[in-house]
Amino acid sequence: MNVPITSLPRLVIIGGGFAGIALAEKLKNKDLQVVMIDKHNYHTFQPLLYQVATGGLEPDSIAFPLRKIIKNIPNFYFRLTEVLSVDTENNEIDSTIGKLKYDYLVIATGSKTNYFGNTSIEKYSMAMKNVPQSLNLRSLIIENFEEALLTSNLEERNALMNFVIVGGGPTGVELAGALAELKKGILPKDYPDLDIRQMQINIVEGSDRLLNSMSPRASKKSEDFLVDLGVNIWNNVQIKNYDGYCVETNSDVSFKSSTVIWAAGVKGSTINGLNDECIIERANRIVVDEFNKVVGYDNIFAIGDVSCMSTDVYPKGHPMMAQPALQQGKLLAKNIVAILANKPMKPFVYKDKGSMATIGRNKAVVDLKKIRFQGVFAWFVWMFIHLISLVGFRNKIVVFFNWFYNYVFFDRETRLIIRPFKKKNKESF
Amino acid sequence: MNVPITSLPRLVIIGGGFAGIALAEKLKNKDLQVVMIDKHNYHTFQPLLYQVATGGLEPDSIAFPLRKIIKNIPNFYFRLTEVLSVDTENNEIDSTIGKLKYDYLVIATGSKTNYFGNTSIEKYSMAMKNVPQSLNLRSLIIENFEEALLTSNLEERNALMNFVIVGGGPTGVELAGALAELKKGILPKDYPDLDIRQMQINIVEGSDRLLNSMSPRASKKSEDFLVDLGVNIWNNVQIKNYDGYCVETNSDVSFKSSTVIWAAGVKGSTINGLNDECIIERANRIVVDEFNKVVGYDNIFAIGDVSCMSTDVYPKGHPMMAQPALQQGKLLAKNIVAILANKPMKPFVYKDKGSMATIGRNKAVVDLKKIRFQGVFAWFVWMFIHLISLVGFRNKIVVFFNWFYNYVFFDRETRLIIRPFKKKNKESF
Repeated sequence: MNVPITSLPRLVIIGGGFAGIALAEKLKNKDLQVVMIDKHNYHTFQPLLYQVATGGLEPDSIAFPLRKIIKNIPNFYFRLTEVLSVDTENNEIDSTIGKLKYDYLVIATGSKTNYFGNTSIEKYSMAMKNVPQSLNLRSLIIENFEEALLTSNLEERNALMNFVIVGGGPTGVELAGALAELKKGILPKDYPDLDIRQMQINIVEGSDRLLNSMSPRASKKSEDFLVDLGVNIWNNVQIKNYDGYCVETNSDVSFKSSTVIWAAGVKGSTINGLNDECIIERANRIVVDEFNKVVGYDNIFAIGDVSCMSTDVYPKGHPMMAQPALQQGKLLAKNIVAILANKPMKPFVYKDKGSMATIGRNKAVVDLKKIRFQGVFAWFVWMFIHLISLVGFRNKIVVFFNWFYNYVFFDRETRLIIRPFKKKNKESF
Repeated sequence: MNVPITSLPRLVIIGGGFAGIALAEKLKNKDLQVVMIDKHNYHTFQPLLYQVATGGLEPDSIAFPLRKIIKNIPNFYFRLTEVLSVDTENNEIDSTIGKLKYDYLVIATGSKTNYFGNTSIEKYSMAMKNVPQSLNLRSLIIENFEEALLTSNLEERNALMNFVIVGGGPTGVELAGALAELKKGILPKDYPDLDIRQMQINIVEGSDRLLNSMSPRASKKSEDFLVDLGVNIWNNVQIKNYDGYCVETNSDVSFKSSTVIWAAGVKGSTINGLNDECIIERANRIVVDEFNKVVGYDNIFAIGDVSCMSTDVYPKGHPMMAQPALQQGKLLAKNIVAILANKPMKPFVYKDKGSMATIGRNKAVVDLKKIRFQGVFAWFVWMFIHLISLVGFRNKIVVFFNWFYNYVFFDRETRLIIRPFKKKNKESF
């Protein structure tokens, strides 16, 4: 890989997500050469991907060019490539554009969809972990309705208008709410010659309540909100199989659906070449100590979703969301500076700022440390927090304006099939 | 095709471009069933495609859902499909989703890139006639620089940074200007480890001046603006061949370039099944009379780019741009209402409102009927006209804000490779 060799120690960061950019920003102008590697040239604000998928936001307003984040910084390099493996003996990574030596390596590769080994579900269901996937889902949703118009086979038409969301976490709940609002305000106008009342939105959750990482009150309220919006909630149900048409579960419930959206789990995006002992099998995360150092190595760190730091409060590792990633990235920057100065590192302590989910217009649930609330105010808080967290001033304004517009006009204007989605091949053309 | 049969006469419009939507909007609530067919579910504002290709605007802000334009109108139907052919004997069209009878047919299929039979150029060059093509070009431009970073072969690196725009009409001129602004303000910051001065932007025009449909003064001024921005202008040069690397011309000039953008001509997107006599071979346009009626038929019309109405002022047909399309669409609506009421039709007279092109920040040229001007004021006029012509209030605001942001911050923030572009297969994945 073509990166200049200097006398400075080289830190390589793999991944420009929340963890990677939090780390990189704090390492500006330190006595280090920093190389960031990512397979995309942009940072993705994942919490809003569901709004891209449902036509509420344009994809470009939740993405931000990584080169812009790190511009004008001496000793800072970005390379657009995919890492193939790490050779820890020789302190070297291998990528699609060649090898690169490192002095320190930070793995911030995030997470990917976890199908728990079910290849049939992986083949036929839709995921929503990055921008292209969300755009594929957006195309598919609209194409389903265009197709439903054309068939006189009632069963086929119903399957096209039947959406099954697997997983009742924030992603599933927010997507279900957004689909319900499409059903209510947009689709009846767009398809006056279809009976949109036949559209079904199902959310299937394996545990006994939606949002089970939040308070019971938040779960209850979000379920009420979704029922009000006409969403069918199936708690205590697990999807067993999906062949592109029939959805089988572990109970009597079954669905005939053209569209299954898999939001039931994520796993770490680890890289090849690490010791087997430092990978937790099921969640595919990398075990780190309290300084985010990968066990068994001295100069390799892992932060964010891909890392698993077992603590008293979180024995199975911190939740795989933005906050731990940001906080770990920031602290690791300080600790790396400490290492270089031969000073002691600080252990990571997660400050849980709470969690929240939005269900729709004026409907959100917020659990903070000391206070929990739901409804209109929660919805404004949700919007405010997401706006200030978005990277980039332009993005903030464009997203704000789109939300304002959608709120006032009950609209979602980016319902565009820019690249149609081929169901059979699961790709866009 | 699944469209209800009513007692009303059925008018089928093929194409939701400027001509098609101008016609459709004026036919709201008339005693007609109107069916619009398009292969995209959105209207594209083509004059701003070059800004999508150069990272200045997000694609979703220059596209507008066709179903939203025609919503809530009784007797109005939209179908997302591609027309295969027309059977004029049986008054029927055939499409990828089946056949449809018509009483009146309006062909508003616009134009496509004209390679004048050169398959090699068609294979290796980029076009910019629709949103996916513009997004492919955006990806390719950024990928070129990412690739240029990696090679130590100087010749290869220069070819990656050498852009050849073929065609000195408004599209070519505006794209050249936008690339020059990327070179000036953005790329040196994004790629501090590349010598961006080596980037070359060439515009190649077969005639003796750029913008040769405008006044000589506009041509002169646009050439001055482009030279100021560092663009190389090659008038009186024609591209003969391109193999993906070498560009051959009819003169001594040649280029080594990874990126040739073909903006040298368009031709009508006609449909199969019409009489050979009504198609003009070279421009592939459909000959119409002064009422936009296709010669040889009583109930088939053609409007916009695809139609060729020979007049004293325009013996070879009107210019293939938005204004004639809009005006023909509006008049045809009146004429169809006249036909239904057994009243005489009005012949089409083109009102030339002038033409304009923008070269960059504070730099544009405007030719109106009585007045011609260039520079800052022309640039504001250009922006104002384009903003008010954009379909959709949301689009206007988002585009306006992006322009304001780009102006104030000298930025282009949508430089994202959402879907990488595979050069060899000419498709995105």
